[in-house]
Amino acid sequence: MKKALGIDIGGTKICYGIVNEEGKKLSEIKKTSTPKTIQEIINTLKTIILDNYDNIDVIGVSSAGAVNIENTKVVSSTPNLPLGYNSIDFSTLSNKKVFVENDANCAVVAEAIIGAGKGYDTVLMVTIGTGIGGGVYSKGQLFRGSTGNALEVGSMKIFADKRQKCTCGRYDCWESYASGTGLKNCAINGALNYSEFKTSILKNKKPNEITTYDITDGVEKKDAFSMKVFDQWIEYMFVGLVNLTDIFNPDCIVISGGMCNFIDVKQLEEKINNESVVSNVSVKIAETQNEAGMIGAALMALK
Amino acid sequence: MKKALGIDIGGTKICYGIVNEEGKKLSEIKKTSTPKTIQEIINTLKTIILDNYDNIDVIGVSSAGAVNIENTKVVSSTPNLPLGYNSIDFSTLSNKKVFVENDANCAVVAEAIIGAGKGYDTVLMVTIGTGIGGGVYSKGQLFRGSTGNALEVGSMKIFADKRQKCTCGRYDCWESYASGTGLKNCAINGALNYSEFKTSILKNKKPNEITTYDITDGVEKKDAFSMKVFDQWIEYMFVGLVNLTDIFNPDCIVISGGMCNFIDVKQLEEKINNESVVSNVSVKIAETQNEAGMIGAALMALK
Repeated sequence: MKKALGIDIGGTKICYGIVNEEGKKLSEIKKTSTPKTIQEIINTLKTIILDNYDNIDVIGVSSAGAVNIENTKVVSSTPNLPLGYNSIDFSTLSNKKVFVENDANCAVVAEAIIGAGKGYDTVLMVTIGTGIGGGVYSKGQLFRGSTGNALEVGSMKIFADKRQKCTCGRYDCWESYASGTGLKNCAINGALNYSEFKTSILKNKKPNEITTYDITDGVEKKDAFSMKVFDQWIEYMFVGLVNLTDIFNPDCIVISGGMCNFIDVKQLEEKINNESVVSNVSVKIAETQNEAGMIGAALMALK
Repeated sequence: MKKALGIDIGGTKICYGIVNEEGKKLSEIKKTSTPKTIQEIINTLKTIILDNYDNIDVIGVSSAGAVNIENTKVVSSTPNLPLGYNSIDFSTLSNKKVFVENDANCAVVAEAIIGAGKGYDTVLMVTIGTGIGGGVYSKGQLFRGSTGNALEVGSMKIFADKRQKCTCGRYDCWESYASGTGLKNCAINGALNYSEFKTSILKNKKPNEITTYDITDGVEKKDAFSMKVFDQWIEYMFVGLVNLTDIFNPDCIVISGGMCNFIDVKQLEEKINNESVVSNVSVKIAETQNEAGMIGAALMALK
């Protein structure tokens, strides 16, 4: 069975390890800090590759940013990596074949092949953190779109009347309602409009000082205001997810990201299946988490 | 070059002809009325197949409804075809290989291979009639989803606060705002809320008596009310299309259906490209129109 070195290049850490075609980890997963210059990044990658050279067939790289059609370079800007990062041609690092893929796409592949989506035909992954990202893996293939930028689901408008400005400058992006930032926006709106705020444990806070933690903590303490804000946030998430269910007809939705632990997936699953016009879908929490990029990149390099 | 008999089974007509692998029509396209019983439909199909038997390699059937995974039967209900239609196993009609596909999917394939989407990588087709339907053909493949029901784009919610009930019983479906029915809904809402209605050429009509024709006619006559209603309708269409652009990253959107001739596609294209977070997309009007189902079915059977 062939083996790949998976390398996940993040803004803070580079994480790597050896993975076989079944997605099984064959080595300890190691981490190193991401260097601050391009030359140091190249040297670090070459060292990692050399140390594993005789034990691998191919190399898979997971990275932030959009990649080129040959999967050898990152072509978009990557704010958390040094300037000039997109000048690196990963295929020149060694004589082994290198396959570079966007980190969100790698995560979908990992979840679909060895994670929560294992055994399903069409897996929609939605990552809910500060923003919202997504990916679809259907019938053994990643859906990429014409330039590899598909699944910008965070930008889906869930209102059509320019109601709330998003940090991106556009209006009514799903992520401005249903991400971590979205929960904060729901809290601000709630503090200004819900009568429950007056008697809430959060009543002494200024609306824009309420944090996502305040709300999730308030829900645990059964604070009526926090619960109303949280329910509104879940409703916004639901609207986006039912839209994507009708659009992609997945049999599994995998939810990941910092906010996913606050979600009752069974309840959400029932709500989506009641509303969607397509067949039934399972809603699950991601399993591979921090190793998803590394494993997904390795699996794609091996394909 | 191989040849297919393409058969498009509609509620009123059965349309058929011979098509080669390049999508070129090799025979006159013939039409016959759709019979009222299952047995007569089967007899009609057998006659059509026999008459062309020696000139074809395979048979492609385009039909309303969802098809099974083997592409041999229609499995959903089809209100415009006789009861029991979904009991027909098309593969038993003759010894030639038969491939059955949903009519909307056939139309996408026809447009992507020989129509307005020819030469593009990822074609999103949106059909705007009484409702809104869709399909995506990317990198030589139709996107089907887990049970073949993907691209139910008409059900995408473009409001998240249960503002307008759709005929399907759900709220805020895109098709209740941006289809032909949607234009009528925009007119009703406009008549109740726009001051321009008082001086409109339509002012003597009851709101729910205003037709889509009244509005498109009013736009031509530069009636301020009709133009405002129409602009709102275009805005709703735009919101759905920019969502789908960010989700599928198509390089071509093909618009078809009864309402497509009222749309200024160049203006819509510019508006989408200004707003979308992914790469540029071309917006075009469908070219194959009535023959799309027949040609698409033939092309898929030949694949």
